[in-house]
Amino acid sequence: MAVNNILKRIRIVLIQTSHPGNIGSAARAMKTMGLTDLCLVKPKYFPDEQANTMSSNAQDILEQAQVVDTVQEAIADCKLVIGSSARHERSLAWDILEPRICGERVATAANNNAKVALLFGRESSGLTNDELALCHHLVHVPTNPEYSSLNVASAVQIMSYECRQSVLQLAEKETKVESNEKNKTEDVVSASAMESYYQQLETAMVDSDFLDPDNPRHLMNRIRRLYGRVGVTQSELNILRGMLVAFQKRK
Amino acid sequence: MAVNNILKRIRIVLIQTSHPGNIGSAARAMKTMGLTDLCLVKPKYFPDEQANTMSSNAQDILEQAQVVDTVQEAIADCKLVIGSSARHERSLAWDILEPRICGERVATAANNNAKVALLFGRESSGLTNDELALCHHLVHVPTNPEYSSLNVASAVQIMSYECRQSVLQLAEKETKVESNEKNKTEDVVSASAMESYYQQLETAMVDSDFLDPDNPRHLMNRIRRLYGRVGVTQSELNILRGMLVAFQKRK
Repeated sequence: MAVNNILKRIRIVLIQTSHPGNIGSAARAMKTMGLTDLCLVKPKYFPDEQANTMSSNAQDILEQAQVVDTVQEAIADCKLVIGSSARHERSLAWDILEPRICGERVATAANNNAKVALLFGRESSGLTNDELALCHHLVHVPTNPEYSSLNVASAVQIMSYECRQSVLQLAEKETKVESNEKNKTEDVVSASAMESYYQQLETAMVDSDFLDPDNPRHLMNRIRRLYGRVGVTQSELNILRGMLVAFQKRK
Repeated sequence: MAVNNILKRIRIVLIQTSHPGNIGSAARAMKTMGLTDLCLVKPKYFPDEQANTMSSNAQDILEQAQVVDTVQEAIADCKLVIGSSARHERSLAWDILEPRICGERVATAANNNAKVALLFGRESSGLTNDELALCHHLVHVPTNPEYSSLNVASAVQIMSYECRQSVLQLAEKETKVESNEKNKTEDVVSASAMESYYQQLETAMVDSDFLDPDNPRHLMNRIRRLYGRVGVTQSELNILRGMLVAFQKRK
């Protein structure tokens, strides 16, 4: 399934996790959303019985997990690196994404064959400045300002969920584009076709004294804005033109 | 803050939870997203030390939690009841919502002062048919078809997250509407105003022989679709009407 092939390019990197239960819960969270690539940077305890217990039936994710010493190793083959930040510091130089937007960017990159890493910092202190410096963007889950204590596995759950949603949407959009091409859904007409209608309309408006060429009162601009907003299809334009011709014949 | 006032109308109902740790994790998940109303139907162990531990600093949610014997009691004052379903049975008579759409419906109802309940079933077996029968809608988190074992607290996390996102978006939209009203952005005209224009247009079309009343070819429906799609403002409608009157005078 194409969706799983895209999702497997998304790597979850957990940095110096203290509680092995969180590693297990994160593995389970990943697997429910179809992610499989877990990388652990200097975990405090791993492998660990509690990690296994909390992973439920996602032990395969733990067994396949890479364990490395540095974040650099964890992201070496990744083209897009996004850090999860609990801090909501607008003063940071990084572009802070919302989870949904982040999911879209991750899905787009993964769909273009790029490996992507999502970094999750320590339970106590998050990511260090050196680790932040390795990130192209940060993502912040908008939490209750009075209680922003999102568990690391919960953050992995939400981000994996958003990645899956975006990948599913991408897949759906591609299917739709294909079926639209089959069904030949009607396109909006070209700007030049609209332009020739506007000229026909303007002539009719002048002829009927509705538009005074010496005092046009932005009428044509307003009409352009109206039809420009809607996006007129060919069959609709045929009606508009036909109607105008019929009105003019009544002269 | 208005956002918190809306979120407090959303009740999380956990039914016959077996693992008290899940109750604690659910409480923490709720609080990170600003939800406060937790109701437990016949929990296996509660209060419980493990629930307290897993709740981290969300013990206030546990302390305020109602414990009841039946789902009916849990939802007695709720106008909208949504059941979380792990089963993805299209044969079910219920309307199965995606989490995002569900969040929007919940936020809209809560914003209109309605109490809303989100029901989460047993870890092992979900909701019974009798419990499903109490729900107005079901919500299903789209999981990996090969591993859909979403922990109950993770499901609470995702749904609370989606509710918060939708409430934040509603709040943002209202702020925008207010500031738009200040800028006097023009509203779209009412359906009845458009209706009277359509009648005027239809008369002109018949008079000019463009529309044959005996063979109308869905012309009026197509025109309704065109203008319905754009949303016509008052000043635009004035132009459309004025133009039509001018064309008709040429008789």
